[in-house]
Amino acid sequence: MRGIFIGRFQPFHNGHAAALRYGLENSDELIIVIGSAQKNHELDNPFTAAERYEMIVRFLKSDGFKRAIYITPIDDIVNHNMWVAMLKSYLPRFDVIFSNNSLVNLLAGEAGIKVVPAPLLDREQLMATRIREKIIKGEKWEHLVPKAVYDYLLEIRGEERIKSLAKVKEDIHVNSKSST
Amino acid sequence: MRGIFIGRFQPFHNGHAAALRYGLENSDELIIVIGSAQKNHELDNPFTAAERYEMIVRFLKSDGFKRAIYITPIDDIVNHNMWVAMLKSYLPRFDVIFSNNSLVNLLAGEAGIKVVPAPLLDREQLMATRIREKIIKGEKWEHLVPKAVYDYLLEIRGEERIKSLAKVKEDIHVNSKSST
Amino acid sequence: MRGIFIGRFQPFHNGHAAALRYGLENSDELIIVIGSAQKNHELDNPFTAAERYEMIVRFLKSDGFKRAIYITPIDDIVNHNMWVAMLKSYLPRFDVIFSNNSLVNLLAGEAGIKVVPAPLLDREQLMATRIREKIIKGEKWEHLVPKAVYDYLLEIRGEERIKSLAKVKEDIHVNSKSST
Amino acid sequence: MRGIFIGRFQPFHNGHAAALRYGLENSDELIIVIGSAQKNHELDNPFTAAERYEMIVRFLKSDGFKRAIYITPIDDIVNHNMWVAMLKSYLPRFDVIFSNNSLVNLLAGEAGIKVVPAPLLDREQLMATRIREKIIKGEKWEHLVPKAVYDYLLEIRGEERIKSLAKVKEDIHVNSKSST
Amino acid sequence: MRGIFIGRFQPFHNGHAAALRYGLENSDELIIVIGSAQKNHELDNPFTAAERYEMIVRFLKSDGFKRAIYITPIDDIVNHNMWVAMLKSYLPRFDVIFSNNSLVNLLAGEAGIKVVPAPLLDREQLMATRIREKIIKGEKWEHLVPKAVYDYLLEIRGEERIKSLAKVKEDIHVNSKSST
Amino acid sequence: MRGIFIGRFQPFHNGHAAALRYGLENSDELIIVIGSAQKNHELDNPFTAAERYEMIVRFLKSDGFKRAIYITPIDDIVNHNMWVAMLKSYLPRFDVIFSNNSLVNLLAGEAGIKVVPAPLLDREQLMATRIREKIIKGEKWEHLVPKAVYDYLLEIRGEERIKSLAKVKEDIHVNSKSST
Repeated sequence: MRGIFIGRFQPFHNGHAAALRYGLENSDELIIVIGSAQKNHELDNPFTAAERYEMIVRFLKSDGFKRAIYITPIDDIVNHNMWVAMLKSYLPRFDVIFSNNSLVNLLAGEAGIKVVPAPLLDREQLMATRIREKIIKGEKWEHLVPKAVYDYLLEIRGEERIKSLAKVKEDIHVNSKSST
Repeated sequence: MRGIFIGRFQPFHNGHAAALRYGLENSDELIIVIGSAQKNHELDNPFTAAERYEMIVRFLKSDGFKRAIYITPIDDIVNHNMWVAMLKSYLPRFDVIFSNNSLVNLLAGEAGIKVVPAPLLDREQLMATRIREKIIKGEKWEHLVPKAVYDYLLEIRGEERIKSLAKVKEDIHVNSKSST
Repeated sequence: MRGIFIGRFQPFHNGHAAALRYGLENSDELIIVIGSAQKNHELDNPFTAAERYEMIVRFLKSDGFKRAIYITPIDDIVNHNMWVAMLKSYLPRFDVIFSNNSLVNLLAGEAGIKVVPAPLLDREQLMATRIREKIIKGEKWEHLVPKAVYDYLLEIRGEERIKSLAKVKEDIHVNSKSST
Repeated sequence: MRGIFIGRFQPFHNGHAAALRYGLENSDELIIVIGSAQKNHELDNPFTAAERYEMIVRFLKSDGFKRAIYITPIDDIVNHNMWVAMLKSYLPRFDVIFSNNSLVNLLAGEAGIKVVPAPLLDREQLMATRIREKIIKGEKWEHLVPKAVYDYLLEIRGEERIKSLAKVKEDIHVNSKSST
Repeated sequence: MRGIFIGRFQPFHNGHAAALRYGLENSDELIIVIGSAQKNHELDNPFTAAERYEMIVRFLKSDGFKRAIYITPIDDIVNHNMWVAMLKSYLPRFDVIFSNNSLVNLLAGEAGIKVVPAPLLDREQLMATRIREKIIKGEKWEHLVPKAVYDYLLEIRGEERIKSLAKVKEDIHVNSKSST
Repeated sequence: MRGIFIGRFQPFHNGHAAALRYGLENSDELIIVIGSAQKNHELDNPFTAAERYEMIVRFLKSDGFKRAIYITPIDDIVNHNMWVAMLKSYLPRFDVIFSNNSLVNLLAGEAGIKVVPAPLLDREQLMATRIREKIIKGEKWEHLVPKAVYDYLLEIRGEERIKSLAKVKEDIHVNSKSST
């Protein structure tokens, strides 16, 4: 039985780690999908898919996971109705999606995909937002992410990036808000 | 004389029905354009183009329209200046656009297309928004849409979808906000 | 030594003119990049790349610039991390970017491109926004843009366009917000 | 029971007319899909979706069809595996596809959509190609298309367009071969 | 030291298996990139990224690989000059690309990425093409792919698909040749 | 009176130089459009828009042109019918297009844009193809391009690139043939 666990991982934190363990306990293999893969260097999406990939790789190594885990970045799709078809087109066959997100439940349900609630996922987004806010305010956030991720974020100077992005009033030319 | 009547139809309601009748009285044939066709499963755009197409088909049948009516979904275009060129590229020849929308007037005007004000259209968007709000609040909305559309929305469980979408705080991976 | 000066120029104003002079004093040749080139007929982006191109052309002629100046419209890119690669793919070789924008500094810095602060650029966006607001309110704005640009904006009836766009509550079908 | 009948209609000809009649005899309602809608002014795709739409409209009028027929342009999709999901996202609910095309059969079959062979469709593509070749060579082709379509093609000077496109050795800048 | 090994894997065959072993001998970790991820159900690209992902997963399991191997589908990019920037944006940090392909060498070289020749890769494409040709002709091909891949291809009826695609003279509406 | 002169400039050669002079003699200002801007590192399109931009800049400098000349890269568009709308959206106002290309004539004519034949342009494409062939065969080609362009091509090692691209049998993963 193969499951999908989806997140944006901006950054990967302890809530993700817990949900990932939950997913592994309830499946034989797990596919970790890095959502909104095309986004980066935005205040809500500071890290590239590449960097989020690396965070997960480092966490898995540090944690000594044994079971088969696949990691795949997936871009957003404007036509939500085609989202499940896109997942099926890019990921190895899967049986279940671990999620508490209403939209995932709706889209997966309409496509006949089984969804299993992952209790900790619910606060996931909140936590990533809180971490970014703490970084901007200069508060302590080290305890909210796995040690391997913390070290990696120091290595790529993630704090500086988030602080810089917080200063962007209006990104005058790179701006992809309301655009292709 | 062929006219265009454009709406997002999220959902199709009595205001659309009235405007459609107005359009038919002032043209020989009418092209109904389903705007923002690529969007669905968003709080402001809950229904697919397919479902909106079906709403219109069912309304027209129930209403016994005799005159030639064409229905065509059209995607949004980021480059607004090319919007009229896109319409001309996808729709059979047309002579007039029925609209009260400032942007449509502006773009059609710059392209030399005649625009005829459709009095009821002005409140169109407001009404669709109000219907979605009523559904979320559990208020009565049946009287705001044609009977055929109401029946169809029950059939596809439209209320449940809109309520689910209202619960999405941040759609964590399907999210197409500020993205392609 | 060739420099880049980037702006959205909605519209081109005295702040741009000053920054442009600063850029020319600090480089041998200047490439003016018209950012968000694909956007127009939005309240925050009323003019087409074509019209902004024309504004710059007229300003340069009126001002009698002698040095080599290149003007190039560049579309936005959703994947910010690839923005510098896109610039390098479309523009003649450049050595420096004149900018005070945090995001530009971040992206250029990560790609190893030298950024030179251009003091006046900082208030650039504010000024364009203020001009659009003044036009909507019917206040005097003539003194905020070069004479050649003012004349051009009258010629293309720029005031009327901005006022029309301010009336668009929700552009019902052309809408590119959160879409492709 | 609602069926889909798909073609590129470059141009609409007698083979299409026959297949359309076959489709109507085997369904209650028919959706005519104008495929490769985004293509035009290419030697193999000379006419816009708009023009092909018009051809079909004129043919249906001339032929006095009574039953409900819907016409919808659909763009190509690079990811063939998502094609059926796209159809479902843009077209009103359908039960069957009339086709003899191997790829349609394959994709529809994998998606669990019923396909009904339409004997005349098989030679469809051949016929459109032959008509374009006859036009280029200056041979008689009037007998191969319905009268209403022939008249329309004269009206839009379709022969001249096809002859012009045949002269394009390499379209030097509009060229979309192997490109976006 | 982390390496990239890129292929289209249409299907995964013994040449890929050998090159993969070579890559692992010359790196600490390997990222397998499934190229042209967006393509499928074409004669030259019969399988989805999902199916190719599954082939590799099954091969790795059957072969008992111990070392860290990452698998990631990557879409094509029209602007070749931005290809390396795209790779860097989607993949965890890498040090070397295993390749004998001229274009990869050229693009990686211009971007300052080290390329290590992988002797067996050279005949890779040829072999995949030959396998597809053998399937069409009904010749024996079982010996050209790993057993785990052969079993999987039987499971998804890969032979039938390739034979069907060979019959498509011109895919009349899904056709993405020279299109978006 | 402002004219447009369009080419792919792969590479810029003496035929372009002659046509450019012809264009300048028949207009007050000239906009040079670098077509197929998004393409590069293909056998038929070896150079980036950036490099072609640089070729033109260097040629103009070496030739001491006095008149106003604007240079703008423009991407291809799949929907040919919208091509003129795209040009109008990105380029400063223009009055005439210098061209002998059938497709340009057709599209410009349908959009009501004046086209002036530029005698030398006709052989333009042929010449660029011939130069690339000569480079592959190791024949002399120096006399076919302006000296400034020749020097630049040496500087960026253009010969090596074209020779490398000629060796690409099938570009296994970057391949954008029949894709987005």
